[in-house]
Amino acid sequence: MYNSLDDIPATLLLGAGPSGVAPSTYHALSKSIIGHMDPFFIRIMDELKDGLRLLFGTRNELTVPLSGTGSSGMEAAFVNLVEKGDKVLILQNGVFGTRMVDVAGRLGAEVTELAFEWGKPVDVDRVADQLGKDRYKIVAVVFAETSTGVRNPAKEIGDLLKGTDALYLVDAVTAIGGIPVEADNWGVDICYAGGQKCLSCPPGASPITFSDRAVEAIKNRKTKVPNWYLDMTLLTAYWGGGTRVYHHTPPVNMMYALYQAVYNILEEGIDNVFARHERVHKHLAKGLAEIGWAFLVDEPYRLPELNTVVVPEGVDEAALRKRLLNEYHIEINGGLGALAGKIVRIGLMGYNAKEENVDRLITAMKEIL
Amino acid sequence: MYNSLDDIPATLLLGAGPSGVAPSTYHALSKSIIGHMDPFFIRIMDELKDGLRLLFGTRNELTVPLSGTGSSGMEAAFVNLVEKGDKVLILQNGVFGTRMVDVAGRLGAEVTELAFEWGKPVDVDRVADQLGKDRYKIVAVVFAETSTGVRNPAKEIGDLLKGTDALYLVDAVTAIGGIPVEADNWGVDICYAGGQKCLSCPPGASPITFSDRAVEAIKNRKTKVPNWYLDMTLLTAYWGGGTRVYHHTPPVNMMYALYQAVYNILEEGIDNVFARHERVHKHLAKGLAEIGWAFLVDEPYRLPELNTVVVPEGVDEAALRKRLLNEYHIEINGGLGALAGKIVRIGLMGYNAKEENVDRLITAMKEIL
Repeated sequence: MYNSLDDIPATLLLGAGPSGVAPSTYHALSKSIIGHMDPFFIRIMDELKDGLRLLFGTRNELTVPLSGTGSSGMEAAFVNLVEKGDKVLILQNGVFGTRMVDVAGRLGAEVTELAFEWGKPVDVDRVADQLGKDRYKIVAVVFAETSTGVRNPAKEIGDLLKGTDALYLVDAVTAIGGIPVEADNWGVDICYAGGQKCLSCPPGASPITFSDRAVEAIKNRKTKVPNWYLDMTLLTAYWGGGTRVYHHTPPVNMMYALYQAVYNILEEGIDNVFARHERVHKHLAKGLAEIGWAFLVDEPYRLPELNTVVVPEGVDEAALRKRLLNEYHIEINGGLGALAGKIVRIGLMGYNAKEENVDRLITAMKEIL
Repeated sequence: MYNSLDDIPATLLLGAGPSGVAPSTYHALSKSIIGHMDPFFIRIMDELKDGLRLLFGTRNELTVPLSGTGSSGMEAAFVNLVEKGDKVLILQNGVFGTRMVDVAGRLGAEVTELAFEWGKPVDVDRVADQLGKDRYKIVAVVFAETSTGVRNPAKEIGDLLKGTDALYLVDAVTAIGGIPVEADNWGVDICYAGGQKCLSCPPGASPITFSDRAVEAIKNRKTKVPNWYLDMTLLTAYWGGGTRVYHHTPPVNMMYALYQAVYNILEEGIDNVFARHERVHKHLAKGLAEIGWAFLVDEPYRLPELNTVVVPEGVDEAALRKRLLNEYHIEINGGLGALAGKIVRIGLMGYNAKEENVDRLITAMKEIL
């Protein structure tokens, strides 16, 4: 009998996630498990919720980590709010926007998809135009599009929605902990994030937050949430204050890790963390300029944590990535969907957002090319 | 700033789960993360699927760990098979049976609930009777009822269903790795399990298996699975053989831990593991007899891994459990639902199924009572 885990390679993760994990977070992950109703675990939960509120920029009571990876956040966001026939406007300029269309459609939403060129930001004027044409229960956008590296104008879209009935749903999976997220200031009603991007937590627990208005909308549903596992009313009875009602067993050790990951960010100082991402992104830009590679996205809309870079004519990006992984133990990712083969995606997220990692990558790329 | 994780108590988990975790599994959990499309991770996935097949007693191609805790298995089982109006027969004799009724009902199933006394097994004659009255798309039962400690006659129910069109759905959350599960021999079509019970893996990844007949039924759905995250057709494209298509980022480190947990069982020998559970259960029975506590369940239907014990007149079970936790660092659980306050649940699962743990518990109980 042979245990393959013994051979897990030490890989520098500079892709679109999962990202590298700090030693303190690995340490937290493997701490002794305790029961999910243990008073000590409940204290950890409460402190974790407070930390997540800081990262989301919210005072929302209903702010919890879900027992799933980032995609479970998208599922939870839609399944709790959508009822059959509800009008949902999705601003789509990447893979995760198209996924929203799929997720909402499966739940019976009447989806309007407003599509924008991949690699460009959502055009706020076109959104305003569309909002003049119809009324929507939900307007949804991906803030940091992981497939294109675009930072969408989440604040400006929020401004358009202020004073309307529409619930504002924002995907912050790749944003949180890398660039500022200000859910309350932007009028966001539902916001979910991933642990495995800039929080540098292994995937398996995903923060989500609902405004009081969103909670009210869930309470006013005509039908039960068609997903027991992710039903926020049931989850609130467990994660909320007062008497805890057992719902399901959460991933206890993943919660330790997420707690530690959030703790690490708050200890470094959240603004310092954002500044570090920005600085290391500029360092990458300099390195890429040296080898003559250009960004896909115009400068004001680039994500420091997820860099999409156009593959120059004549370069086989799949072969490049394979050599980087096998010979240099560095992972970067290719493009998704329409951008497959045309770009590579270089993530500088959380713990791995360090100049020395950029240097290691650029040196390796120079040697290979 | 203060990190509460530093104070996590070392607790002996003898409740209904999560159970104790072996040092090797903690070690696996905190190994270096690699990408979810890394060829090395794909190898780990393939080996893990093989291990899970052995534990389920199946040769089903579609056997994977889900990216969620045990309850996500129940959700996945029903959401992939149920379409609006489908007839589902649920054999209910505990909390997890009632949960099935809720889960299936939310998805639009026409549910028939056949209820049995809590603490007694499902009565096969009554099931046969019911099957004569109507035709069902799905017949579902909880094999090891975690709320009552009853081992239901999963094989005998399967025998009744052989030759019918009904899909047989079995919850093996608390069974797997503790008592034999023989999905193929019993004609089970959908079976899910928990990592955090007798597999002694922290919660966060849950094995599930679908027979070819169940896969065919999913393919023949008229509507898309109303749950993107748990859609088995999409998951198959990622977990299946051949070209891997990215679906969502699975909890990589949880998969390491589950791999190690399964490895540990196979290394000990699965029959040895079952024998150990049986032996330690008998050791507990002896200890309980000494202090005059009786089992809720008749001997032939007891689960060795989950012992439900009637609280004697005059004993405050909540106070007992609190003292066990606070003074002796031992967790046992109370009853759920109708059994709250009437029983305690003592789990002897996986890594913690050891005589010395029973001795520690019985000694503590003697001191307190």
